[in-house]
Amino acid sequence: MRIGCHGLVWTGTYDAAGIRHAVQKTKEAGFDLIEFPLMDPFTFDVAAARAALDDYGIVATGSLGLDESTDVSSEDDAAVRAGEALLERAVDVLAELGAEHLCGIIYSAMRKYMEPATQRGVANSQAVIGRIGERARAAGIKVSVEVTNRYESNVLNTARQAREFAAATGSDNVGVHLDTYHMNIEETDMFNPVLDTAELLSYVHIGESHRGYLGTGNVDFDSFFKALHRTGYDGPVVFESFSSSVVSPDLSRMLGIWRNLWSDSDELGAHANAFIRDKLVAMASTTHH
Amino acid sequence: MRIGCHGLVWTGTYDAAGIRHAVQKTKEAGFDLIEFPLMDPFTFDVAAARAALDDYGIVATGSLGLDESTDVSSEDDAAVRAGEALLERAVDVLAELGAEHLCGIIYSAMRKYMEPATQRGVANSQAVIGRIGERARAAGIKVSVEVTNRYESNVLNTARQAREFAAATGSDNVGVHLDTYHMNIEETDMFNPVLDTAELLSYVHIGESHRGYLGTGNVDFDSFFKALHRTGYDGPVVFESFSSSVVSPDLSRMLGIWRNLWSDSDELGAHANAFIRDKLVAMASTTHH
Amino acid sequence: MRIGCHGLVWTGTYDAAGIRHAVQKTKEAGFDLIEFPLMDPFTFDVAAARAALDDYGIVATGSLGLDESTDVSSEDDAAVRAGEALLERAVDVLAELGAEHLCGIIYSAMRKYMEPATQRGVANSQAVIGRIGERARAAGIKVSVEVTNRYESNVLNTARQAREFAAATGSDNVGVHLDTYHMNIEETDMFNPVLDTAELLSYVHIGESHRGYLGTGNVDFDSFFKALHRTGYDGPVVFESFSSSVVSPDLSRMLGIWRNLWSDSDELGAHANAFIRDKLVAMASTTHH
Amino acid sequence: MRIGCHGLVWTGTYDAAGIRHAVQKTKEAGFDLIEFPLMDPFTFDVAAARAALDDYGIVATGSLGLDESTDVSSEDDAAVRAGEALLERAVDVLAELGAEHLCGIIYSAMRKYMEPATQRGVANSQAVIGRIGERARAAGIKVSVEVTNRYESNVLNTARQAREFAAATGSDNVGVHLDTYHMNIEETDMFNPVLDTAELLSYVHIGESHRGYLGTGNVDFDSFFKALHRTGYDGPVVFESFSSSVVSPDLSRMLGIWRNLWSDSDELGAHANAFIRDKLVAMASTTHH
Repeated sequence: MRIGCHGLVWTGTYDAAGIRHAVQKTKEAGFDLIEFPLMDPFTFDVAAARAALDDYGIVATGSLGLDESTDVSSEDDAAVRAGEALLERAVDVLAELGAEHLCGIIYSAMRKYMEPATQRGVANSQAVIGRIGERARAAGIKVSVEVTNRYESNVLNTARQAREFAAATGSDNVGVHLDTYHMNIEETDMFNPVLDTAELLSYVHIGESHRGYLGTGNVDFDSFFKALHRTGYDGPVVFESFSSSVVSPDLSRMLGIWRNLWSDSDELGAHANAFIRDKLVAMASTTHH
Repeated sequence: MRIGCHGLVWTGTYDAAGIRHAVQKTKEAGFDLIEFPLMDPFTFDVAAARAALDDYGIVATGSLGLDESTDVSSEDDAAVRAGEALLERAVDVLAELGAEHLCGIIYSAMRKYMEPATQRGVANSQAVIGRIGERARAAGIKVSVEVTNRYESNVLNTARQAREFAAATGSDNVGVHLDTYHMNIEETDMFNPVLDTAELLSYVHIGESHRGYLGTGNVDFDSFFKALHRTGYDGPVVFESFSSSVVSPDLSRMLGIWRNLWSDSDELGAHANAFIRDKLVAMASTTHH
Repeated sequence: MRIGCHGLVWTGTYDAAGIRHAVQKTKEAGFDLIEFPLMDPFTFDVAAARAALDDYGIVATGSLGLDESTDVSSEDDAAVRAGEALLERAVDVLAELGAEHLCGIIYSAMRKYMEPATQRGVANSQAVIGRIGERARAAGIKVSVEVTNRYESNVLNTARQAREFAAATGSDNVGVHLDTYHMNIEETDMFNPVLDTAELLSYVHIGESHRGYLGTGNVDFDSFFKALHRTGYDGPVVFESFSSSVVSPDLSRMLGIWRNLWSDSDELGAHANAFIRDKLVAMASTTHH
Repeated sequence: MRIGCHGLVWTGTYDAAGIRHAVQKTKEAGFDLIEFPLMDPFTFDVAAARAALDDYGIVATGSLGLDESTDVSSEDDAAVRAGEALLERAVDVLAELGAEHLCGIIYSAMRKYMEPATQRGVANSQAVIGRIGERARAAGIKVSVEVTNRYESNVLNTARQAREFAAATGSDNVGVHLDTYHMNIEETDMFNPVLDTAELLSYVHIGESHRGYLGTGNVDFDSFFKALHRTGYDGPVVFESFSSSVVSPDLSRMLGIWRNLWSDSDELGAHANAFIRDKLVAMASTTHH
């Protein structure tokens, strides 16, 4: 199991310098893995990223949220095609980075929709994600659809929906990406969704209820880690946090990051790395129970 | 302490027939109080509401969320004036209904903002709410500002912010309205915000983490009721729930209600009424502890 | 699924009048079932119990804890034989009552041991319980071994231990009896033990962490009921509570009941009945999730 | 705030070699403080302890539970006198060690009582603890009475009882010692008892619900640490754990330690030290909230 950190903990600017800074900080905080934000994979500096990963000896994954112009869950064919092209490019970038995971809100725009998803739009999305799943398989990359809260997508808000969605893509290289921040809003509890997805679960985000320091909000992390332990999950476990102290123009305002929940990324990251690893030590000890 | 129910549990149509239906159902489910949605107080049928309340023997409160055209937290003077006029009318409607509470997102639009609130906009909002507080005081109505999650307003996301906001209005008839659904996302826990607001707390919404049946999600209701018991809160406690099975054109899509979390309003409401009252019985017994 | 109440909620005196009183109160509080304390099945007034059950239209189960003189987990053959005779009589009493369940600490004394259980003592216990299981099967009675905290037995403190114990009895009429009060002390959480026992789970006690009003302590009831819902449990769910206001000479001091956690049994019982049934309504609604 | 570890995590043998081993291990696991078990202060090797503390650069506190022969809550004057003498000796030992805290079940025997405490016995206990409090004050030592579960004493089972008890001793050098393991059984929740004792709270034990690894049971540690943060507690915070893998003849069987919940003390202790310190980092960050 690899413990990772989302790149936006460190900087909101993803040019070559930003990438190197984020990789360095991720390593220094003790993580094994950085999740790069690939909102724009066409301009992502792959060479810089590859060099930084090699220099610091960690691995990468990539995530993104689509926008209206690339919304594969829309009924607008141009947007669907643009979205598929963007996801293809994301797969290629990750292949060049030797990454093994593409995840996030890759099946719709990441935004507060004002209408429910349509059947035709969802079918479009499933078809695209099925093809992306197969393209990614060829590159040794797993594709995971992130279950998100109602304000960030109208397509997948629960683990059970994601299970059905993954099945409908027709690609068994498509798995489910759970995020404790979103689960805290949409799911029955933190245990059932892990049991409901079981072997389909292929990516995990660890975020607090307000997206700040782990353990300072309402997420029932213990139940979640107990469920992961029970099902034997061993994919990536990646910390995610947002504060107005680090702002990405792409993301922060869409996510409603109005407050400063931390100011010291170094402390925040080191704390999160220790928090997650300590949970795993604790869970391993439950074989005595 | 009065136990109530939000009117949109019963119908999304607030004409005279809808009002009567909602009042009847609220009474039949066992509640003492209905919270009317006053999104448009100018067209609200006060006579029908008054007759229904009298016939069924329950009392009313009123809540609303502003929109862009009436956003008192904007820098657009026309919107601020329009918002104040709407709130004044809401106070007058409630006075005619003999209601004692105006609450909700009355200090900004209820929507996913794309930019942080500005200092001038917040000052506009505080000035308006201060004046509304004084107008309402004259009518025997308490005004409470609802602390909401980041996706529904950018002005008040925590109890501490609301405490400062209320103080800045200059009216001691302005109190704080806490909602467990929002607290579950934004607050440290369910205990501290009640202690942090204490005597300022004047209105309470009881909603589950996904806005469905109480006890089927992630909200730590026990801590919240223990905190209310500790501080001696005795204002309204009002159940709120939304499902795609009852749709208000004003509200549902703004709130991202994409799923059917219940279909039987009667069972849902009776369950919520029993849930809340049983918590109060339990809390009263803790004087033995 | 039948919802029941332990008889000692109502009285500590189990003569004919006490039995009738307890049955009446159990019925009036809304329960389907009374669990009789069968500490001494030889003197239990079966005729009085049968008449009361018939008059009030509820069913019975029986539970007990052995003592030193009847400890089937001891290495003292006389005690083991005496314990087996007592359990045989308990089965016969329950058969006469038309009861379907024998449960409790039937596999050891109910007391604070001062030494760990021995291998030979545990083997004695398993052999006895295996035979009692078969005798009970013939009478249509399920036998369930209650997992209890470290201060009330040294034999079975966790669900996993009970699973192994039940298997070792050789009788598939021996199931597991979980009690939330004990689970709160000994188990990893409230979800795993239900999954760990699954089809073996045949009896459930619902007790708060301090054995008072449900919802006024530390037990995570929601997780427990979510787990029961997931596994499809449909056996008895029986409320248990103890206060110094109702004292059984057999039990209270062994259980360390030093405090008055309630004084009004009627309110306590009605509250517990509503609490449990409301959880089941809530759980049923989660099929929407 | 000093973070400490109970000495029985490391060894059950408290001769000079055991003392040195425990001090060394406590230091190596990262703690600031060791809590010595002073069950028999008359034979405790003060010189060995002092040398070990100096060599490893940590400080000590002392705790104990009385037994029947030294039960200051009994009505037997000889036992009360013997108990007071033992506590006087404990104070003297701690003074020689430069320790600042005496705590534990110093107000009664540590055992499963079979009868409730009597008024005269409790008065005896309050008088003794009052005098011990004054003797300790002269030596710069704070005396804290540990609130324990019903199976380990019949005198103090809740924070509110301890508050009254402390007041009745007449010594303001007597404070309250809370232990999360016991609180999980006896208290309303993990927040109220901290508020109820507030400035009286002078010592804290951190134990899991089954006394194993922190985070692998049912204790709601987050609420407890949030409450400590709110009240500004800055006394000792001491980890306590018991497993059948380390056995003290004095204590283990009285405490019902029948199971092996861990085997690697080094990992257990380092984990607990990190767990507690990480909670404090998280709590400090909530000033942003």
